Amino acid sequence: MTPEPEAYERWACELDTLYAHAWQRLTRGVHDRHAPARHPTLATVSREGWPQARTVVLRAADKARACLEIHTHLHSAKIDDLRIQPRAAVHVWDSASKLQIRLQVQVDITSGPAAAQAWARVPEASRGAYSAGHRPGEIIASSLAYTQQPDPAAFAVLTLNLEEMDLLHLGTQHRRAVFSRAHGWAGQWRVP
Amino acid sequence: MTPEPEAYERWACELDTLYAHAWQRLTRGVHDRHAPARHPTLATVSREGWPQARTVVLRAADKARACLEIHTHLHSAKIDDLRIQPRAAVHVWDSASKLQIRLQVQVDITSGPAAAQAWARVPEASRGAYSAGHRPGEIIASSLAYTQQPDPAAFAVLTLNLEEMDLLHLGTQHRRAVFSRAHGWAGQWRVP
Repeated sequence: MTPEPEAYERWACELDTLYAHAWQRLTRGVHDRHAPARHPTLATVSREGWPQARTVVLRAADKARACLEIHTHLHSAKIDDLRIQPRAAVHVWDSASKLQIRLQVQVDITSGPAAAQAWARVPEASRGAYSAGHRPGEIIASSLAYTQQPDPAAFAVLTLNLEEMDLLHLGTQHRRAVFSRAHGWAGQWRVP
Repeated sequence: MTPEPEAYERWACELDTLYAHAWQRLTRGVHDRHAPARHPTLATVSREGWPQARTVVLRAADKARACLEIHTHLHSAKIDDLRIQPRAAVHVWDSASKLQIRLQVQVDITSGPAAAQAWARVPEASRGAYSAGHRPGEIIASSLAYTQQPDPAAFAVLTLNLEEMDLLHLGTQHRRAVFSRAHGWAGQWRVP
């Protein structure tokens, strides 16, 4: 006997409601700084072939075009990785929904004049993260031997174009489905 | 003028205390199911060269040997990835400590009789995750068209041997340092 799903998790029982819920949670990450999707993990592959994973901040989510946006330092290691291989994975564990969101994305890098509009919307207090001079990850002699000099030329927008979305819901029963751009975002159930 | 660090974050100001704190937080993840390090994100590289990231459960942490342990289904996609390239990245965002822990690890896979001791310690209720028959990720016709038949032959232990630990503390001032096995876990400050 399969237990009846609880009302609060019925969204996980059908492919279309599961997909819609995941986008709702991603979109919430853009607008609510306390939402789990505010801080996804972005994984890339380094020149040497090592996987690399770090926290990023979600800046935009567009369900119709199936893309997300994040910002980064143009001279960060993740940009080096993406210039060699513009594929990344995005990971969110949404504890409130008990939902793991895994995305495969193709990444477009925008910087310079083309990123000016996005730069104009970066709050003054956050601009120090895009600093002239020091490159993130550079070796320094002591912990605070760096400066934060805002520089629009160090600012980059990453557009993450989704190829695939893999959703795992850990409910009364576990459910997993994969949705892909190639199939018009129709989903397929998978073994969790 | 550099602001004086708050007492509660002085551990982030010296390389040795920063390193010790990270291991304390990892170790807590093993013993406390609500600790952030309980559920790291593990990134691998697929046969096709895509990064892959998913949540895992931390089962052991050994500072002296600088290794961690997780468990997985022997027929999961991450095992396929690791058989081709036994390198992974581990990511933890420890919100309580405002500490990002990034690890580069070499992975050993243990299964069958060699994993029998670890299998014996897996609680009965958790054994369904290591199931005979269905392979995780297999396409199924409906969401619950799978069984969970515990099978010790489907159980694998991953030993994650650390090569490098990259720590980023977002405190009053941000601090970042990298520690590596090659340098006897001596650390180097980096630009955050």
